[in-house]
Amino acid sequence: MNRERKFRLGVLGSGRGSNFVAIADACVAGKIPAEVAIVLSDIAEAGILERARERKISAQHIAPGKFRTKLDETAERAYIDALQKAEVDLVVLAGFMRILKGEFLRTFAQRVVNIHPALLPAFPGLEAWKQALDYGVKVTGCTVHFVDQGVDTGPIIAQQTVPVLAEDTPETLHARIQEAEREMYRAVIGGLARGQITVRGRTVFWKKVEQRMCVDGHLGLNS
Amino acid sequence: MNRERKFRLGVLGSGRGSNFVAIADACVAGKIPAEVAIVLSDIAEAGILERARERKISAQHIAPGKFRTKLDETAERAYIDALQKAEVDLVVLAGFMRILKGEFLRTFAQRVVNIHPALLPAFPGLEAWKQALDYGVKVTGCTVHFVDQGVDTGPIIAQQTVPVLAEDTPETLHARIQEAEREMYRAVIGGLARGQITVRGRTVFWKKVEQRMCVDGHLGLNS
Repeated sequence: MNRERKFRLGVLGSGRGSNFVAIADACVAGKIPAEVAIVLSDIAEAGILERARERKISAQHIAPGKFRTKLDETAERAYIDALQKAEVDLVVLAGFMRILKGEFLRTFAQRVVNIHPALLPAFPGLEAWKQALDYGVKVTGCTVHFVDQGVDTGPIIAQQTVPVLAEDTPETLHARIQEAEREMYRAVIGGLARGQITVRGRTVFWKKVEQRMCVDGHLGLNS
Repeated sequence: MNRERKFRLGVLGSGRGSNFVAIADACVAGKIPAEVAIVLSDIAEAGILERARERKISAQHIAPGKFRTKLDETAERAYIDALQKAEVDLVVLAGFMRILKGEFLRTFAQRVVNIHPALLPAFPGLEAWKQALDYGVKVTGCTVHFVDQGVDTGPIIAQQTVPVLAEDTPETLHARIQEAEREMYRAVIGGLARGQITVRGRTVFWKKVEQRMCVDGHLGLNS
């Protein structure tokens, strides 16, 4: 085995791929000690595939099958095969709009991460920024977590707070959260690639040097 | 009517009264333009009554009646009467371990506030700091909200974030939250006493000058 082999990421997304772009560019810049090995999407025309191809990264559309919110058995197998063939060490969900289930999660046990646009366990599910605004919270944020069988329920790796302002619309709040997401996701994937992150029960531990990164206002990217 | 009349607070608590002490002392120091008119407790030997008497503030034990988590009808009436007799403008819950219901909340409509040791809607109910630690969140905090018919569901006035640290026990986390609570509660009661706070639907607005106080890490007390 080649000791110089880089940590390999498989990125799944259904949308424009703004988080993917931040991750891929941070890899190239050396801020994340990893490389994106493959990008998969359930949407043939998703921007994330285009962004990947621009960067000469392998990008595939794999049709999700007959269900609306998850992958059918054939599609699940195809996603697993593509990721295994690409020898990914970590599966990164970046706006992937399908729920991942049993066989996928067993194959990549504790190697699937997601980012959610709220401070979980508050506001799981869709349009979390809108839920937060409707509820009237003064602080929301984003959460990176390991993916488990539930929806947005897995062990939390990092959270970043984002203020809700009096003049916020869903759009302005969402944009502010997305900015925080990009920075935090890069930091977390860096931590995972460097082996700094361990899980005990529901609690995720960072090695000391990075700990402050995950708990408060300012994520200092490793640069 | 005397225009110089101060804004009057009625404080209800069941415990040591640490939030009450912070509020009372801030009133005396002129940091909150208000005075504590009366302190009521459902527990005869609660420290909060002792702390009030030390400060020459009217303090009464009113037995809660036959229920375990709320006031019975007679007790509810007695609490209302005592607060009305003391001419309070705002009812401040400071560790009061009884749920307030219909008649009380109708009498003091949108004039009852509570502080909760989590970032609501996450972790409502008892021992919220322990719930947060067990869940494995990286950020928690405290919330001041208007009290409505639900448990910890009313419109949110202010929230303050508190980091969860890797070495935290329930006790150390609770202590850190309580420190944030004291500062935030004083700031919010000051805002209410100055008439700076309005509610529209579920959303609470602060007049511009104070707005930054309620949304992020540093509450600047008006001093």
